[in-house]
Amino acid sequence: MTRPIQPIVLVTDFGEGIYVGQMRARLGSLLPGAPVVDLVHDLPAFRVDLAAYLLPALIRDMPGGAIYVCVVDPGVGGPRGGLLARARDCWFIAPDNGLLAPLVRCTEGASVQRIGWYPAALSASFHGRDWFAPAAARLSAGKDLQATPLDPSEMVGSDWPSERAAVVYVDRFGNLMTGLHAANHCSTQLLRVGNRALPHARTFCEVMPGEAFWYENAFGLVEIAVNQGRADRLLALSPGDAVGPFTRPN
Amino acid sequence: MTRPIQPIVLVTDFGEGIYVGQMRARLGSLLPGAPVVDLVHDLPAFRVDLAAYLLPALIRDMPGGAIYVCVVDPGVGGPRGGLLARARDCWFIAPDNGLLAPLVRCTEGASVQRIGWYPAALSASFHGRDWFAPAAARLSAGKDLQATPLDPSEMVGSDWPSERAAVVYVDRFGNLMTGLHAANHCSTQLLRVGNRALPHARTFCEVMPGEAFWYENAFGLVEIAVNQGRADRLLALSPGDAVGPFTRPN
Amino acid sequence: MTRPIQPIVLVTDFGEGIYVGQMRARLGSLLPGAPVVDLVHDLPAFRVDLAAYLLPALIRDMPGGAIYVCVVDPGVGGPRGGLLARARDCWFIAPDNGLLAPLVRCTEGASVQRIGWYPAALSASFHGRDWFAPAAARLSAGKDLQATPLDPSEMVGSDWPSERAAVVYVDRFGNLMTGLHAANHCSTQLLRVGNRALPHARTFCEVMPGEAFWYENAFGLVEIAVNQGRADRLLALSPGDAVGPFTRPN
Repeated sequence: MTRPIQPIVLVTDFGEGIYVGQMRARLGSLLPGAPVVDLVHDLPAFRVDLAAYLLPALIRDMPGGAIYVCVVDPGVGGPRGGLLARARDCWFIAPDNGLLAPLVRCTEGASVQRIGWYPAALSASFHGRDWFAPAAARLSAGKDLQATPLDPSEMVGSDWPSERAAVVYVDRFGNLMTGLHAANHCSTQLLRVGNRALPHARTFCEVMPGEAFWYENAFGLVEIAVNQGRADRLLALSPGDAVGPFTRPN
Repeated sequence: MTRPIQPIVLVTDFGEGIYVGQMRARLGSLLPGAPVVDLVHDLPAFRVDLAAYLLPALIRDMPGGAIYVCVVDPGVGGPRGGLLARARDCWFIAPDNGLLAPLVRCTEGASVQRIGWYPAALSASFHGRDWFAPAAARLSAGKDLQATPLDPSEMVGSDWPSERAAVVYVDRFGNLMTGLHAANHCSTQLLRVGNRALPHARTFCEVMPGEAFWYENAFGLVEIAVNQGRADRLLALSPGDAVGPFTRPN
Repeated sequence: MTRPIQPIVLVTDFGEGIYVGQMRARLGSLLPGAPVVDLVHDLPAFRVDLAAYLLPALIRDMPGGAIYVCVVDPGVGGPRGGLLARARDCWFIAPDNGLLAPLVRCTEGASVQRIGWYPAALSASFHGRDWFAPAAARLSAGKDLQATPLDPSEMVGSDWPSERAAVVYVDRFGNLMTGLHAANHCSTQLLRVGNRALPHARTFCEVMPGEAFWYENAFGLVEIAVNQGRADRLLALSPGDAVGPFTRPN
């Protein structure tokens, strides 16, 4: 066949256990040979409101042409629908629970549809494997998803703000990613976190070991870090905790 | 070659560290291009008695035609043998320590053989890389494993019960999978756990946030969960802890 | 094309989160279809001094012909350079911070070069994705890395000892790998750890459950383990903690 192979990229809060393996096996049987990329599986569990703000940053520098399957889905089994969005030369399949809302909002020309196709067999609690992964396989194979256009203002989360002044992800080193776009904030400003005011630095080496600072991370987000230390422990912050505002130095 | 490519599926308690990478690299050198699926690597460490009851559920909805390499092997380096089982259109390679016993027992038409082939070089402590993965590669390539039929009643674990009334796996969200088949139990019954009696629900959305319940999970097992919470913490249960029995409501 | 496909092998302290996914996606777009092996991503965070002693052991039994991308890089964004080493029929790309020093030192015929090529766009904090992975893709495609020979004695870490009498890695089971080569030590000796003197055993089954011992692990390193238990907890040791010396029994 001459269709170019599109990578399937997985974005979940499933952890590295059995759920991802089941999704990969299902994809492997429906789309033999298609590359599947595990982009992230340790999104904060259940926290659609945080994951939604990390997603646009994560894909900023990713290759085009991919099909993303995004599953943070605490309402699985309930009445929420499924979405198919088009943004930045990629497709995104996800539950209609806000997960794609900031991405669609911040991407010029993005569009969104409601998925009308359902699989013949659907478990009550694992739509990632049973619905969204097969939908991605159908999309990749050029099959119909019975999708109908949706006005973005009707998506769940369409009223969410364009930035989120909170920790949205803690990496393995204890660095704290926020839902703030670095491009919107000035490096002469301090970032208030509790009763501290953190200075900006360009990179870890510019501050003393043990010192906390904020910087623009490799995804374009405001991130709080500590040179050779753990920001999450030093500042006692976890996913969902508020940060900011930015202030001018005295 | 015209032989269809069979996925190699890995099932271990190795965690995501160096052992899986070594197995994958070995497979990649012996079977270039064959797809390797990481089904699960966070089985409870050393607990063959629990993993054995999760395995049949994990593969229930997996694609056929795969070769499973299953390694939970606390007795590595000792005299235990290696098995090759055939069940549900798939092959299973594993130590003879009970890991395949419930699968063979619960699968009609399953058969089992003892592997007689050994590699030229075999470390004392890493048979997953040095013996079982190369055996899978040989099987995939149609080479001989010097296997001899074994009466299933001679497998280690052949006398284990068909269900296990205990927690066999805790997922990332704190949900508690048990070794009980949901199809064998009635949804009008309560599941006793300590001094609680948990009601049945079809899915998370059917109970109040914070409430514990039991349900049939996407693998056909009885699972204990809490809507928007962690069942492992609320009920203080870990892998190996007993659950049950089922009781009738008053 | 007729060039044989070389696997790209990833060795990092990134954990299983978003950084590895970004590297894999970048590699997938630059080298479609090339196999990428996750060898290890849970090296002790920031600890180049430990990872450097694990690396030669990890690759000892790996297939030849691979390109390793090794990233433990606490100085990212600073002035440290990038290295391309050749050892045991494989290529190694890494920061010049000591990570490759013991490997080059212990491998006969190893050579090392300084990478002169830089990508057009380079983030300050993610050289694994932006510099080292693309360099591996260029190398695989036969493109120039503008590499200039380097005298191994000029590498950072060239003065480090050939062994490291410390815990360099703790696996999921609590086993403690050290930076000591088992081939250099005699199995009649005891290994002192704090006020204990651990005996040698060939494998776990040779000691009583709960008993600590040292043995040659499947990578050729001295490893401290406990039969059916966790050595890290029993001995209260973590990565970086000193072990040894070896002593003769009385």
